[in-house]
Amino acid sequence: MGETQGRTEPKRLKGFRDFLPDLMATRLSLMDVIRSEARKAGFQPIGTPALEYAETLLGHGEETDKQVYRFIDHGDRDVALRFDLTVPFARFVAEHQGTLTFPFKKLQMGEVWRGENTQKGRYREFAQCDLDIIGVDGLLADAEILTAFQRILSRMGCGAFTMATGSRVVLSALIRHHLGPMAPASETAALIAIDKLAKVGPAKVADLLATIPGASPGGATSLLEALTARDQDGNTDLVRVREALAQGEAAAANLAALDRLTSVLDFVRQGVQGGLGRIVLDLTVARGLGYYTGIVFETTIDALPGFGSICSGGRYNDLASRFTTRELPGVGGSIGLDRLLAGMEELGKVSPATADMVFVAVATADAQGYACEIARLLRDAGLACDMGLTPKLAQQFKHADRLGCPFVITVGTDEVSTRTYALKSMREGTEERGLPMEGLAAFLRAKGLGR
Amino acid sequence: MGETQGRTEPKRLKGFRDFLPDLMATRLSLMDVIRSEARKAGFQPIGTPALEYAETLLGHGEETDKQVYRFIDHGDRDVALRFDLTVPFARFVAEHQGTLTFPFKKLQMGEVWRGENTQKGRYREFAQCDLDIIGVDGLLADAEILTAFQRILSRMGCGAFTMATGSRVVLSALIRHHLGPMAPASETAALIAIDKLAKVGPAKVADLLATIPGASPGGATSLLEALTARDQDGNTDLVRVREALAQGEAAAANLAALDRLTSVLDFVRQGVQGGLGRIVLDLTVARGLGYYTGIVFETTIDALPGFGSICSGGRYNDLASRFTTRELPGVGGSIGLDRLLAGMEELGKVSPATADMVFVAVATADAQGYACEIARLLRDAGLACDMGLTPKLAQQFKHADRLGCPFVITVGTDEVSTRTYALKSMREGTEERGLPMEGLAAFLRAKGLGR
Repeated sequence: MGETQGRTEPKRLKGFRDFLPDLMATRLSLMDVIRSEARKAGFQPIGTPALEYAETLLGHGEETDKQVYRFIDHGDRDVALRFDLTVPFARFVAEHQGTLTFPFKKLQMGEVWRGENTQKGRYREFAQCDLDIIGVDGLLADAEILTAFQRILSRMGCGAFTMATGSRVVLSALIRHHLGPMAPASETAALIAIDKLAKVGPAKVADLLATIPGASPGGATSLLEALTARDQDGNTDLVRVREALAQGEAAAANLAALDRLTSVLDFVRQGVQGGLGRIVLDLTVARGLGYYTGIVFETTIDALPGFGSICSGGRYNDLASRFTTRELPGVGGSIGLDRLLAGMEELGKVSPATADMVFVAVATADAQGYACEIARLLRDAGLACDMGLTPKLAQQFKHADRLGCPFVITVGTDEVSTRTYALKSMREGTEERGLPMEGLAAFLRAKGLGR
Repeated sequence: MGETQGRTEPKRLKGFRDFLPDLMATRLSLMDVIRSEARKAGFQPIGTPALEYAETLLGHGEETDKQVYRFIDHGDRDVALRFDLTVPFARFVAEHQGTLTFPFKKLQMGEVWRGENTQKGRYREFAQCDLDIIGVDGLLADAEILTAFQRILSRMGCGAFTMATGSRVVLSALIRHHLGPMAPASETAALIAIDKLAKVGPAKVADLLATIPGASPGGATSLLEALTARDQDGNTDLVRVREALAQGEAAAANLAALDRLTSVLDFVRQGVQGGLGRIVLDLTVARGLGYYTGIVFETTIDALPGFGSICSGGRYNDLASRFTTRELPGVGGSIGLDRLLAGMEELGKVSPATADMVFVAVATADAQGYACEIARLLRDAGLACDMGLTPKLAQQFKHADRLGCPFVITVGTDEVSTRTYALKSMREGTEERGLPMEGLAAFLRAKGLGR
């Protein structure tokens, strides 16, 4: 530190960012809400390391493999920084399956790293917050995940949001019904095409569907019509969908999947009331990733159309098949915390970290101990309080003003001897002197301080 | 995930650990206390990336340089994982000095990585929580740091603790007085020797001091006598110290440094009351690191003698001299969060993450929606609540028992039609049936639930 060395330019890596106080305080308060609601919903927090053996993380897709930060460590081990929380969680569950109680409901929050091309709002380091329920396949578990995310997002301060929920089983059945029987690769291609609907519109998606090997010509149009028809509440119109499902090979199973989806939505509505979220049945939700096997969902902020999903997930089978023979079905989702934070910034919802703080200005050196006592009384009462640390009173007031403190308490020789204080309202510019120490915190609370 | 691949052994890197729910919940609650007390004390949260340019992190000492995880990234940049929060903070302050308001009080929490040899309780990934006040050199700032750590540690649940506080200025003056004038390297060697006092005892330290080039023979004994003499409260006896300081070259400055130290301790005592911490004046506190220039402190848990410091720091000059010409004096310290957590484990202070949770068992499929409604009422009232997600009731009760839930609510066809519920106390084994939904949460609170 104090060593005499050549000066280094203070620069950051591209795609990595510092969090200044206001943004960091907002970010931490979002994490608080997630933790508090997750706890109330019975999700237990866990943690896994940032670094894993490379073989644990690699092989989950060409795209991610390329983006992984991978290197050889001091002990010649091939290691890598996690690129998501799901793969480390699969390793965690396989490793600790003897200790965990299933069904296991977990909360996992942490940074992940991807060496991808940076764009506006995209970073190489970003936080994810995952909720999952492992070890059970049932509609109540599906409902619990959606309910938890609805409750969390309602308290985030991002305003109204819409959770669009579909089913991979139903969507696949509709694809086969309209486009005809097809190879798994073609079906995946169809899912990926439908996933682009919100971005590129139905005409472009129809073009994409028409190029899929084995897809019946003309089927694309009827498929898209069935998927995009809506009832008056904005849900996918199910009349046509039920007709189509009733005709297929696995009619009973497919209709049951649709009934399960509608039941899950009913349960979620019973599990949240007075929230800011709307939940809609939307069969166009595809979630490109190969591993979803049941419900799928994604969530958008109503005030930010075009911003994309801030919370998504679904049901999957065999979370940990890579690491264990034990079959572990699950359902879960992820809040993109830094995406959400970018949304809050765009909405102007980031507020100063210090807005609700009292400032104790110290007019004379003999009042320093007395100032410490006042700070103690305020902090003991749960109020936030800063203190004048520079010698000049004018400088202290300027500092309090820059911090946005609504009130400044001043103490000097007189106040020490009379055990009083002066209180200035920074907004109104008024000052009261000789106020008694008794009831200090209550007096300030009465003036509107304290969250 | 669902891909058919060869199975991978679920293994973790040596020195890295998973946090299972109970430990993770405790860890998060420690971080909560830190954040809440830091906010009340006017410290603003900031965040910096895990990865930095290697040149930012390297060159702060041979020992740390060797331990840094360093590699070449996708863009051929020489990068490294941070090994502490101080160096990234120095870079942060230099980069954002135009935006920040000084004196700047900051809270910074996060993981750091060191490829050191693993020992019991030592990990290669661990969290630090740093508080610093930058841009001012004054005794009130010193007191604010110590006060904040005292308040935080009092709420940690680790019981009584002792904060030993010394002064590098006073210690250096005593070293020169007793050992004679010496080169800076010899003085540093003396500090490092004194730093080992608690670990190896005075005889060994005397031997070490005797080998220092330029140290006067016999000085070691008188130095150690002066440092280890105590008054009845356990503070260093200052009579002998004052005599020594009054004789030296910079007598006025050295005596002022001692007065400053005693004033700081007085202010801290005025800033905390009813806490679990004892603050003592202990001139043997040296803190080996070269950069401290004023007060230095370290903190031990009384119930864990020999466990080592869980919170330490001090005053330094020129935090960011590596990155900027601006002179930024500061004072700060760090809680070793994972060391503290290890201490809590040793003390048996880690409690179940799910101890205070109601479990809603679902006896019949037609009661699922009703169960969601009950869960909503409990969660809206701030209570934690889990639900039976497996079909069989006996299995659900077994799960509730394993989670340690004190109460299980059961609902089935009858309860849905009468809008009632059955409540079983898992501790007492008693069950009440036909309880009314009205006042559900209040009824459970009256039974002692809810934190």
